[in-house]
Amino acid sequence: MTKKVSATGKRVWKTPDGHSPIAILFNSIYPVPKEAIDLIDEQTFPVQVARGKFLVKPGDTEPHLYLVLKGVIRAYIKEDGKEITTWINEENEIVTSIRNLGLTISSPEYLQAIENSSLIAMPYALVEHLYEHFLEANIVGRKILEDNYRGAEERAYICRIASAEKKYQHFIKTRPGLANRISLKYIASYLNMTIETLSRVRSRLAE
Amino acid sequence: MTKKVSATGKRVWKTPDGHSPIAILFNSIYPVPKEAIDLIDEQTFPVQVARGKFLVKPGDTEPHLYLVLKGVIRAYIKEDGKEITTWINEENEIVTSIRNLGLTISSPEYLQAIENSSLIAMPYALVEHLYEHFLEANIVGRKILEDNYRGAEERAYICRIASAEKKYQHFIKTRPGLANRISLKYIASYLNMTIETLSRVRSRLAE
Repeated sequence: MTKKVSATGKRVWKTPDGHSPIAILFNSIYPVPKEAIDLIDEQTFPVQVARGKFLVKPGDTEPHLYLVLKGVIRAYIKEDGKEITTWINEENEIVTSIRNLGLTISSPEYLQAIENSSLIAMPYALVEHLYEHFLEANIVGRKILEDNYRGAEERAYICRIASAEKKYQHFIKTRPGLANRISLKYIASYLNMTIETLSRVRSRLAE
Repeated sequence: MTKKVSATGKRVWKTPDGHSPIAILFNSIYPVPKEAIDLIDEQTFPVQVARGKFLVKPGDTEPHLYLVLKGVIRAYIKEDGKEITTWINEENEIVTSIRNLGLTISSPEYLQAIENSSLIAMPYALVEHLYEHFLEANIVGRKILEDNYRGAEERAYICRIASAEKKYQHFIKTRPGLANRISLKYIASYLNMTIETLSRVRSRLAE
């Protein structure tokens, strides 16, 4: 967690007028009442995760929603000792142990930083409080969910493309930022193919 | 579309007090204002799709959201002439060309009835109208999305399980209703394996 403090004593992760980046994001999606903004400003906080370290592990009890300010977060589930990468997200995306959105059961997902990452954390209890007390928060939530839903559909689809070459081409088309940013082993895991297959596909496409 | 008319002249797909099943469902998720209920009652309509026929095809321009009253709907995308099954849903589930939720681009998905199916259709324009004019509709939408989001995450996950046996076991655990209901070819397509592999897995598990 950052301890950096600005000249005015405010943590520098906030905007010059003292707002949390999550408050700014929510308000840009749909205008949120001032009382809701105040709660977000008070209860969200910055988190730093070094490359390779974990943001969330299975069994973590207090769920949070995170806005990625910098870095890349990968989610995976362990199945027979093997890691199954379920998603990879970059800057300006909202990440969470989303498999259980709206439920209180614990998630089997690991959320790992694959670059040094800065995020803003929002307790999920606050999300639920906002949903309950500010109807507008449901517009924001609904729109973020629509967006993330398309992402999940995309992950379900890319995995089902039979040809490794088509799969990789689809990946570089839909996630151009990641293709040149993250290491091959994560791309291979996300695309559900071996590193050898991925390397072969890449050399063939480079020809 | 059903033409069946009850003694009172109302189409029998409505409840005894004249409501659309979609209005009943929405109102059970979160109380919706009467004016919203009235709009849903007026603008939703029943659809019947025979086994093998299509509810939606790529290029269909007016998007709808559908509540499945009876039957099973499968979504697939054609890739190099091969069908990639993206989801399969049964009774009481909401289906739509959901890949584009919140966007206006056309979907590459085919929605096919794999049993004779009865659905209630709701124009997506009405969904958007409700979101805009009734804040409560956003609570309903947000909750339905949370639910469907978990489904999409599940589809992205099951596809990435390496062992065919584990994959099938996960399927019968999470979708017990479908396992004994739909034909093997659809299960195989959904699980991204050949029918031969699926048959082998099933015989091995039956031993």
